[in-house]
Amino acid sequence: MTAPGLFITLEGGDGSGKTTQASLLREWLESEGRVVVRTREPGGTEVGVLVRDIVLHHRGEVSPRAEALLYAADRAHHIATVVRPALERGEVVIQDRYLDSSVAYQGAGRVLGRDEIRDLSLWATEGLLPELTVLLDLDPATARTRLDAADKPFDRLEAERDEFHERVRAEYLALAAAEPERFLVLDASLPAEQIAGEVRARVTALLSQ
Amino acid sequence: MTAPGLFITLEGGDGSGKTTQASLLREWLESEGRVVVRTREPGGTEVGVLVRDIVLHHRGEVSPRAEALLYAADRAHHIATVVRPALERGEVVIQDRYLDSSVAYQGAGRVLGRDEIRDLSLWATEGLLPELTVLLDLDPATARTRLDAADKPFDRLEAERDEFHERVRAEYLALAAAEPERFLVLDASLPAEQIAGEVRARVTALLSQ
Repeated sequence: MTAPGLFITLEGGDGSGKTTQASLLREWLESEGRVVVRTREPGGTEVGVLVRDIVLHHRGEVSPRAEALLYAADRAHHIATVVRPALERGEVVIQDRYLDSSVAYQGAGRVLGRDEIRDLSLWATEGLLPELTVLLDLDPATARTRLDAADKPFDRLEAERDEFHERVRAEYLALAAAEPERFLVLDASLPAEQIAGEVRARVTALLSQ
Repeated sequence: MTAPGLFITLEGGDGSGKTTQASLLREWLESEGRVVVRTREPGGTEVGVLVRDIVLHHRGEVSPRAEALLYAADRAHHIATVVRPALERGEVVIQDRYLDSSVAYQGAGRVLGRDEIRDLSLWATEGLLPELTVLLDLDPATARTRLDAADKPFDRLEAERDEFHERVRAEYLALAAAEPERFLVLDASLPAEQIAGEVRARVTALLSQ
C-alpha cells in the first residue's frame, strides 16, 4: 500500500491548534515546491458531507454501530477518491483527523471496542496508515479557554463534560505510545511557530528518506 | 441474542415474488392473531432512506467499500431501531432482503469478499440472524419476463446483464445449501398460493416450538 506521496494527519482535541498547524505546514511545503492536498474528516467529499449531515442531524437517534459505519463509509470514500489518488501522484496530503480520532473518541466513550473501530477503519481504507501523525496534546481546561476566547459555538463533542475530554487525551497518548515511529507528540500550549518548527524538522526527515 | 418474536426474511431476485409472499404471510399471521411488522432493506427507516439516496444518487462515484459500509449502516440502524424492538415485544418481523442479499450480490459482483460482507453485516447487527429465510428461486429469464409484464422500470441492479443474475442465483443457492436449517428454498415459478402454503407450514412449525 506504499504510494510515492506523503500522508500526514493531525490529531488532538478541539482547540489544540490543528487548523493553525495544518496551514503553517502547507505554506512551508508549498514554498519548498511541494504539491499539497489539505483535507479533513468527516466531510472531505460531497458524499462525506451527506454522511455528516445524517449523523449530526439525527443525533441520539442513530445507533452507535450505525454511526461508526457511517463515519467509516465517509472515510472509505474520502481515502479512495481524494487521498490515495493524491498520494499516487506523489503529493503531500495533510489531513485534519483520521482513524486515531475514531479510536480515541470511541475508546473514551466506551460504547464500542477500540479494536473493532480500528479494524473497521482499516477495512474501509484497505489498511492505509499515515507516515506521520502529529498529536497536539493539550489539557482540556486550556483547550476550553481557547475555544471560549474564539467565541466558537460548541459542537456535540465539545459540549460533553471535561472528564470525557480527559479520557480522549489519555486515549490519544496511549495510541501514540503504541506507535512511537508514526506519532510526533507535541505540547500544544507552546507557541505555534515553535510547534511548526518541530513538525517541519520531522517532515524534512521523512521527505529526505 | 434470542428474542421472543420471530424474524423471517424473504430473499430472491427482483421479480421472484417477495412482495406478494410477504403480503400473503402477513395476512395469514394477522388472521391468526399475531402482531406483524413488515419492513425492508435498504430504506426501512428515515436514516435508511437518506443512506439509500446517497448510494443511488451517486452511483459510480461511491467506492465499493463506502457503498458496503453505507448499506451496513442502514442495516445497523434498522435492526437496532425497528427489528430488535419488535422481536423483544414478541412480534413477527417479515423483512424483504437482509444480509443474504448483500452476500449474494457482492459474491456475484466479486468486488469484495463474501466473508468480509457477511462479517460486516453481523458486526452491524450484533449477530442477528433470522429464524427463517425464504429463498424464492427463479431463473433470471422468467424473472425478466415478469418484470417486463409489470412494466416496472429497471433499477440499477435489474439493468445489469443476465449473467450477473445467474451468478446471484447461484450465490443464493450456495448460501441456502450452507444453512439448510435457516433456509426454505421454494420454486418461485409455482402458483403464489402454493408457495404461500409451504411458507405457512414452516412458520407454523416455528411458532409451535
